[in-house]
Amino acid sequence: MPATRQTHATDYYPEPAAANVVRIVPLGGAEEVGRNMFAVEVGATGDILVLDAGFQFVSEEGSPGVDYILPNTRYLEKNQARVRGVIITHGHLDHIGGIPFLLPRFGTPPIYTQRLTSVMIQRRQEEFPDVPKPEMIEVEIGQTVTIGSTRVKFFPVTHSIPDSMGVSIETPQGNVVITGDLKLEHDGTTPSEREQKTWGDLGKDKNIFFIADSTNAERDGFSIPEKRVNDTLENIIQTVKGRLIIGTFASQFERMVRIIQVAEKLGKKVVTEGRSIRNNIEIAQLTGLLKMDKGTIIPAQEIGDYPPDKILILTTGAQGEEFAALMRIATNQHKHITLNSRDTVVLSSSVIPGNENSVQRLKDNLYRHDVTLIHYRSSDVHSTGHGNAGELIWINQQVGATFFMPYYGYHSMLRCHARAAEQAGFPRDHIVIPDNGLVIDVEDGERLNVHKQKVPSSQMIVDGFTIGDIQEVVIRDRQSLAKDGMFVIVVSVNMKTGKLRKSPDIMSRGFIYLRESQGLLNEARLLIKKTVEDSTRNMNPIDLDYVKNNLADAVAGFLFARTNKAPLVLPMVIGM
Amino acid sequence: MPATRQTHATDYYPEPAAANVVRIVPLGGAEEVGRNMFAVEVGATGDILVLDAGFQFVSEEGSPGVDYILPNTRYLEKNQARVRGVIITHGHLDHIGGIPFLLPRFGTPPIYTQRLTSVMIQRRQEEFPDVPKPEMIEVEIGQTVTIGSTRVKFFPVTHSIPDSMGVSIETPQGNVVITGDLKLEHDGTTPSEREQKTWGDLGKDKNIFFIADSTNAERDGFSIPEKRVNDTLENIIQTVKGRLIIGTFASQFERMVRIIQVAEKLGKKVVTEGRSIRNNIEIAQLTGLLKMDKGTIIPAQEIGDYPPDKILILTTGAQGEEFAALMRIATNQHKHITLNSRDTVVLSSSVIPGNENSVQRLKDNLYRHDVTLIHYRSSDVHSTGHGNAGELIWINQQVGATFFMPYYGYHSMLRCHARAAEQAGFPRDHIVIPDNGLVIDVEDGERLNVHKQKVPSSQMIVDGFTIGDIQEVVIRDRQSLAKDGMFVIVVSVNMKTGKLRKSPDIMSRGFIYLRESQGLLNEARLLIKKTVEDSTRNMNPIDLDYVKNNLADAVAGFLFARTNKAPLVLPMVIGM
Repeated sequence: MPATRQTHATDYYPEPAAANVVRIVPLGGAEEVGRNMFAVEVGATGDILVLDAGFQFVSEEGSPGVDYILPNTRYLEKNQARVRGVIITHGHLDHIGGIPFLLPRFGTPPIYTQRLTSVMIQRRQEEFPDVPKPEMIEVEIGQTVTIGSTRVKFFPVTHSIPDSMGVSIETPQGNVVITGDLKLEHDGTTPSEREQKTWGDLGKDKNIFFIADSTNAERDGFSIPEKRVNDTLENIIQTVKGRLIIGTFASQFERMVRIIQVAEKLGKKVVTEGRSIRNNIEIAQLTGLLKMDKGTIIPAQEIGDYPPDKILILTTGAQGEEFAALMRIATNQHKHITLNSRDTVVLSSSVIPGNENSVQRLKDNLYRHDVTLIHYRSSDVHSTGHGNAGELIWINQQVGATFFMPYYGYHSMLRCHARAAEQAGFPRDHIVIPDNGLVIDVEDGERLNVHKQKVPSSQMIVDGFTIGDIQEVVIRDRQSLAKDGMFVIVVSVNMKTGKLRKSPDIMSRGFIYLRESQGLLNEARLLIKKTVEDSTRNMNPIDLDYVKNNLADAVAGFLFARTNKAPLVLPMVIGM
Repeated sequence: MPATRQTHATDYYPEPAAANVVRIVPLGGAEEVGRNMFAVEVGATGDILVLDAGFQFVSEEGSPGVDYILPNTRYLEKNQARVRGVIITHGHLDHIGGIPFLLPRFGTPPIYTQRLTSVMIQRRQEEFPDVPKPEMIEVEIGQTVTIGSTRVKFFPVTHSIPDSMGVSIETPQGNVVITGDLKLEHDGTTPSEREQKTWGDLGKDKNIFFIADSTNAERDGFSIPEKRVNDTLENIIQTVKGRLIIGTFASQFERMVRIIQVAEKLGKKVVTEGRSIRNNIEIAQLTGLLKMDKGTIIPAQEIGDYPPDKILILTTGAQGEEFAALMRIATNQHKHITLNSRDTVVLSSSVIPGNENSVQRLKDNLYRHDVTLIHYRSSDVHSTGHGNAGELIWINQQVGATFFMPYYGYHSMLRCHARAAEQAGFPRDHIVIPDNGLVIDVEDGERLNVHKQKVPSSQMIVDGFTIGDIQEVVIRDRQSLAKDGMFVIVVSVNMKTGKLRKSPDIMSRGFIYLRESQGLLNEARLLIKKTVEDSTRNMNPIDLDYVKNNLADAVAGFLFARTNKAPLVLPMVIGM
């Protein structure tokens, strides 16, 4: 696994925090949704604790070919000896996805997390057999654990995956409270008793710094409670006449469990489609989240053995992913499932920004079969895992910390979260809106000191097997290749006479359709010959680099004038 | 302008419609939003009328480098002699954008349209000096015009650009009514008197076929009335304390006019940013839509001469386009405008699907300046130009046609429009949900005959100067280049000995960062040498194609194993 590491002389690494300082350093997730990771450095103990190690999916458009974006770990590498552990708040990929890539870079410290998250991390680790396995320390809600010399306690939060937790890190100056991703369990306006208890208890501590989810801070009020989604889905499962196909995220454990249980109660058979759904159902059984009869899940080829209203198909691909099960079903590529007008399809998910076009394609293909389609815009079949501003403010007030940092989200979300808190009475100068790499010191639990310089925070990428700082030149070339393709010229020049030894060779891809452009090619060949021979005339010795540059300019200009496209022109001049 | 034309032996072109037949042929816009164009062939007169000639913007991801997608005009080319005119319903690019590319392909027939649309078309035509200018015939609302031997009348519709019109084509069997893009003017539940009059009058005709906008058919009820948007904007302009920056679409003529008039009334100066806004304000003045004092619009460099609350900046770029004015302002690249926390920015537009990420970048950059941001999710500062299902059904019932074709939109939109009509009582078997290329005959005004075969309807693209059928192989290469780049190998082989004459040359772009991969390159060179010399051993004569194929396979396999990337491997073997 070749890793590109660049250390710049100008990189900033602060001295270790003094004993009266608690330091917070966001490394990712403060300027985006995804690649969540930050460090808490407790000056009094010298310990550094890392919270989460996620990655971010990237759009093909912005960074073609790049698989994932990772947080920058150079600050942790530099301080590796003091990193005591990584706490993972829950099992979503934007919190665990970076583990195999990142942890080896700073000594693979032990991971502290709950049962389900631990199983998910270990499953995923199997895909990376060459990467050292971190020690897994399973913690429980309510437990207090000492990591290094720092005491840490865990509390339950409501999110779209079980075993989600918040974290409170104890320091001599007071506690640092971290929500992880969360929403509230509520009835529309009032948090449940369970939430009141959790947050009420937390509020009794002396909390100096509060770090909270901002993903839905731009939305007012309270989010749709998951209970309403479950009720809606249960009602659909009960009343739909024909076959029912439900597309959802495999990470929605509780929803999947609920759907399977309701189906079982109604004597329906469940067909599961998609590796991640099968995988997560297995994990749900393994961890005791799902108990069901042996015969409830049937293979797709047995669909015909049951009446349509006894069939429920649970599938991945509600985002319109090209090769996912639901798209294959919609486009008649599934061996055993063909849609018809008596089928009902539920898309139990929202549309992730950037996926609008693929979801549109999915909907169009589904409607081609005249199915009934139910989605989150038409019915409450999905709820977010992130609380709206109303929930966030309620939580903030319960915790009652001295300082507040909105985190987890794009800058606009953090900004709106900060404004909402301010409007609810949180003093403006006690709020820090972070960037990645920002170093925030809380001194004596009562003064904020934000360092002027940032620690390294440029994105690191996973590109094939390569992990490293993003190579802008490579990405730029890809973007240019994507737009107009390329045009390679190979000429052999007689170094004595400066004449071409044969007609130039041309290779082109992604530019224009060459078979139908013979005229253009012939003109290009003439131009190449002329350019080379004009350049070499009276030149002694022949400077091939000069010839090459002339050639690139002449051909690029010619192609642009004739086609209005600017392919990457790559001349190779071989002297003989 | 090299045009790629392919005619396939299997292409379907129906015989001209019989005298008792009215034929509808959608050529674009029936499976997408954009590239609107369809033909109405009146059997009794032999005339073919074309409705609109739009293009569709495409996402970089799906078709990298392609500029626009156009409807397929081969059916019109084949029947060029009978095409009597092109009717343009309004001036948006998805209705006029294809004109310079498409009309010359079928004889550049005259264009019938209203004043503003005509000016916009002619302005745009100036960008294409080599393209023949179509004859422009300006029509007026209420007028009946004879095109060929067919009588056509025009009626006003409400849309987000002035001079939008619907069309009623008279035939001996009854009228074909086309809405163009539209919504209703209404107070929330009741259409205005003007709408009642227009549609009531239309309903008195014998209408056999109704073609209607489906863009918002997936939304229930009535859309937000434009009046509410204007009131909201007026209120913001009046009450905002500091500078006001409004980002909107330049095509929103009436909204721009309203904003300028309100600003003028309040003694504010208006700064316009963006070529399309300046251009359209000029058109608005030219056509009498906008009258204002000379000093109302000031250049950006005079901003400092006025107090902040007397400044209103009207700008393009609310979709986050990288080089548009608003993004330049947000990223401190504007010479005269620097944002600060006393500024208010209004994004008076919705987010076009596919633009979510760029709008997010825009919002983040704006919030960096701590501005107050108002957008369509937080306030009624934008309204769609397309009616919701409630409006569409009301219109449908007023027209009272025998047959109905939902049109203008993705398949899912047409399907939902059809279902809404059916639920409102329209007989299911009198509704046609079209695809592009479908040939729909109405016989004697009372029987529907949908042809089994479709006329050519594959997308045509504008790619640089090339217009033609999409070359899938070129697009595929671009996608592959975008993902993993390319790897060109040039080897010179001694045709007698089969040995390499020198170390192989390698050129690569968009793959990995070569400067940091010297080890990999050296290994690749050894592998290339070995593969060539193994392939040519005992071969006589040497088959260079065979060597080339071996080389491509060996190198591709090696690179994938080492990097997990699959660049396009292009070997060139030169025999000497």
